[in-house]
Order: sequence, then structure tokens, then C-alpha cells
Amino acid sequence: MDAEAYLAERGRLVDASLARALAPSDAIPEVLLAAMRHLVFPGGKRLRPALAFAAAEAVSTAPERALAMATAVELVHCYSLIHDDLPCMDDDDERRGRPTVHVAYGEATAVLAGDALLALAFEVLAAETREPARSLCALRVLAEAAGPRQLVGGQVDDLRSDAARPTPEAILGVHRRKTAALIGAALVGGACLAGADDAALERLSRFGARIGVAFQIADDLLDRALDRGCSLVALVGADAARARAASLLREALDLLEPFGGSADPLRELARFAVGRAR
Amino acid sequence: MDAEAYLAERGRLVDASLARALAPSDAIPEVLLAAMRHLVFPGGKRLRPALAFAAAEAVSTAPERALAMATAVELVHCYSLIHDDLPCMDDDDERRGRPTVHVAYGEATAVLAGDALLALAFEVLAAETREPARSLCALRVLAEAAGPRQLVGGQVDDLRSDAARPTPEAILGVHRRKTAALIGAALVGGACLAGADDAALERLSRFGARIGVAFQIADDLLDRALDRGCSLVALVGADAARARAASLLREALDLLEPFGGSADPLRELARFAVGRAR
Repeated sequence: MDAEAYLAERGRLVDASLARALAPSDAIPEVLLAAMRHLVFPGGKRLRPALAFAAAEAVSTAPERALAMATAVELVHCYSLIHDDLPCMDDDDERRGRPTVHVAYGEATAVLAGDALLALAFEVLAAETREPARSLCALRVLAEAAGPRQLVGGQVDDLRSDAARPTPEAILGVHRRKTAALIGAALVGGACLAGADDAALERLSRFGARIGVAFQIADDLLDRALDRGCSLVALVGADAARARAASLLREALDLLEPFGGSADPLRELARFAVGRAR
Repeated sequence: MDAEAYLAERGRLVDASLARALAPSDAIPEVLLAAMRHLVFPGGKRLRPALAFAAAEAVSTAPERALAMATAVELVHCYSLIHDDLPCMDDDDERRGRPTVHVAYGEATAVLAGDALLALAFEVLAAETREPARSLCALRVLAEAAGPRQLVGGQVDDLRSDAARPTPEAILGVHRRKTAALIGAALVGGACLAGADDAALERLSRFGARIGVAFQIADDLLDRALDRGCSLVALVGADAARARAASLLREALDLLEPFGGSADPLRELARFAVGRAR
């Protein structure tokens, strides 16, 4: 199965799960629910959910067990985009060709919609009570990735990098925390729910760190992100950035060797995510 | 033991735990950690953590097991205060006699510090791996209380109530979601970690809904909150509001009867929290 077919198929599963998590309810103010749904539907490629499923497939015969992690990680991804777009951060008016949440619903509702999506991500995972130890593992992984050491810390340093000209190492540090940590969490959390052992989790974590950074470089190459402070492309040029992404992808694929054929979807997704920028 | 002594003693435990959760670390940008700590230390009365301990004491002989919930609930409380104070929400410059986080560190850092405290709350609970089913129960309770149906939904309706003159029932609905839900989560989550059965959790949840609303009314009475849209005191007057708080407190205390003497700290805390406004 190629990456696009895999993304489409797993995307349908996670879309249905997101629709359940964000179903109309008398208990949620209408404007809040609309703001929470704004960026989730129709959504993007659902790459992170697909990675959660593919990691579960690499370590078990029950990849559907990763559904809660796939859903939670997409909710966290959408929350972080809403807050990143705020006037006090990147001040973006448009995303994916539509007004950003604060433009459509006002700033207060946008902050609160992001907050609610973050809490909802943990609610979805905590509702998975069949195997408490596995759910707790996935929750720990997600909380660490979303917290001050990873996602939020990366965003703080990203905002500051607009002022100072950063080094390549500082840029890769931001990519690792702001992009790769959540991608790694999707992989490790998905595998947790599927019952992976510690050695497999460790390997998937190292795989995620590499494809996460390579994916961010590829994204910047597509964007020709020459005006952003925090872009390797702007600092070292497209050719050197492309070479770095390719070498990270090779390292990542090497890490998958012990998984054998069950990691094929993971290989396809990694090549797809990084290869788009060729 | 009277309420103030109990608050002081349990407060020391939770302060030490909060200090560990927010210890200086190379992995957290310095400005982010400072912004996260700003409202946590020296902090307020630590009422919610004390309630988590007291609930655990009502149902078990090991109240110290509630420490992770006590810590997490205080982190969520501080996150919600930081976001409530933002210019796009209540636009408050001062809290507890000090500049609010966005005044001290800027708006972007304040949004991110709140986000990070929320994620950190789940991280603290998810690190409690000895009894995964109990930790998962506490996580579920906290996530629901912090999510769109409770804390965030209540804040959305609170912001809107400034525009329209609300009914008493609408005001109590905001108090239930914005104040009482997190107080209930402290109680139920603390009892979860201590191994309470479903009947005890249900009873504590009903107790929490009542003292939570009564506590908010008492707070508004202390503030003489006559100029806020969402205040029962402003709408029905101090005497009627005081009578309502007293009747909620009586109902709440009745619910504790089956717990016997082990619920004495809970009784003292409830009387203290509501009684301050006499």
C-alpha cells in the first residue's frame, strides 16, 4: 500500500473518531464547539494519526488499538496551530486557505478553543480504560511532548529566533521540540497502546526524532521559507538543507530494520513526508 | 485539626511537589519557566490541593496517595488564572498584589506558560505508575473538568455574561462549570488515587458541586462583586446570596455523613471555604 492510500484509509478512521470527540452537545457552548472544529475539519493530511497507526502496525497485529492516540495527537496538533496563529504569536490571518480561528471567532474564543482541544486530547486517551497501563504510557508520552520541555519550549525559542539570527544547531533544536516531539509521541503512544515493549518504544522514539526534523526541513523547502527566522533553508540554503533531510531519512529507515515487513507502512509514510520536497 | 492548620500542613506537601515539577532545567527555556512559576509561587491558599488530600483521607488511611492529584489540580488552577487574566479575556493587570503573567512576561509567553502548566498537570499524574487504573481514573476526572464541558465552557459563558444580564440559574451554571468542576475534580481525583469505590466517588462529586458553587458565592461576597456580570450577589443581593451559600453548605455536609469521622478535615475545609464570607 502506498503512503497516500494509507493516509486516506487511516484518515477516515481518525476523522470518524474526531467527529465523535467533537460532536454537538448541549454541554458545550455552540461558539466554543464551532471554534474547536474550525481547524480540525476538514483538516490536513492527518500525517500524525497515520504514524500512530503505522507504529502500532510495526509492533502488533492490532493497529486499530492506536485509534485513541491517533485522535489525541491530532487534537494537540490543532490546538498548537490555533495558539501559534494568535496575534501575540505569529499573527497569521489565514491557514489552509481559510481564516484562522481568532479571525473567525475572536481572540478570546481562539485561546479557549485551543485550551479545550488540549484538555480534550487527554480526555480521549483517559477514556481508553481496557488496558490502563498502556493508556497511562500513551498519556505520559503525549503530556511530555505537549509540555514545557518539548512543544511549548520549542515555540518559545522559535518566537525568540525571529529576533536573533540562530545557529543551525539552534534551529534543529527548535524543530526537534516543536515538530519532532509530537511526531515521536504519535509513534511511541500508538505503539504503547498496541502493547510494544520498551526496546521497540525506544527505537520508535529515535526514528521519530529523525523523521520529525526531516519533515520540518522538507516543509520549509516546500514553503521556500526564506523569510522565517527559524529555518535551516534560510540559513544554509536549499541544497544543504535537502541533503540534511535525506541523511536523517536514511538514519531513520535504518532504525526500522528489526521490525521487518510490518514496518512497511511506516517506511512509506516516512519517505512520503520527507520526499515531498524533492 | 482546624482548617487553617490543615491547609498549612498539606500546603507544605504540595508546595514541595510543585517545586519539583517546576524545578529549573536546561530543557525548559528560562523565561518560560519563570512565567510558569510566577503565579504558582508563592501561590494562594492551596484550597484545591487540601481538598484532594481531605477526600483521600475520607476514603482511605493513605491520604498521601493524593499528592499527584493535589499537584495537578493546582497547576490547572494556575493555568486557568493566567489565561483568564489575558488582555483578550478579563484584561487584569494585577493578581494577589503582583503584576499578572502577561504584564510581567508579555502576552505570548503568558499564553504559552498557561499551555505548559496544563500539559504539565497531566504529566505529573501520568508519572504516577504504581496503580495505573487509579491514575487513569484521576486523569479522566481532571481532563473532563479542564475541558470544553466544564472549565473552558464556563469561561466562554462567563465572558458572554458581561454583555447580557444573566438569570440566577445561568450564573449558577457558570459557577458550576468554572469553579465547582475543578473543586469536584480535586476531590474525586484525590479519592481515585486513594482507591475509593464508585459510590464514594459519586458522593464526593455531588459534595464538590455544592461546595464549589457555595465557595464562588462566598468569594463574590468577600469581593462585594457588584460590578461583575456573572455574580449572584449583584443579581439577588448579599442576603439572598448568603442564604443560598449556607443552604448549599448544609446539603454538602449531609452528603458526608456515611464517611463518619474520617471526613472531618473535609467538613472543616468546606466550612472554612464557604464561611469566610459571613
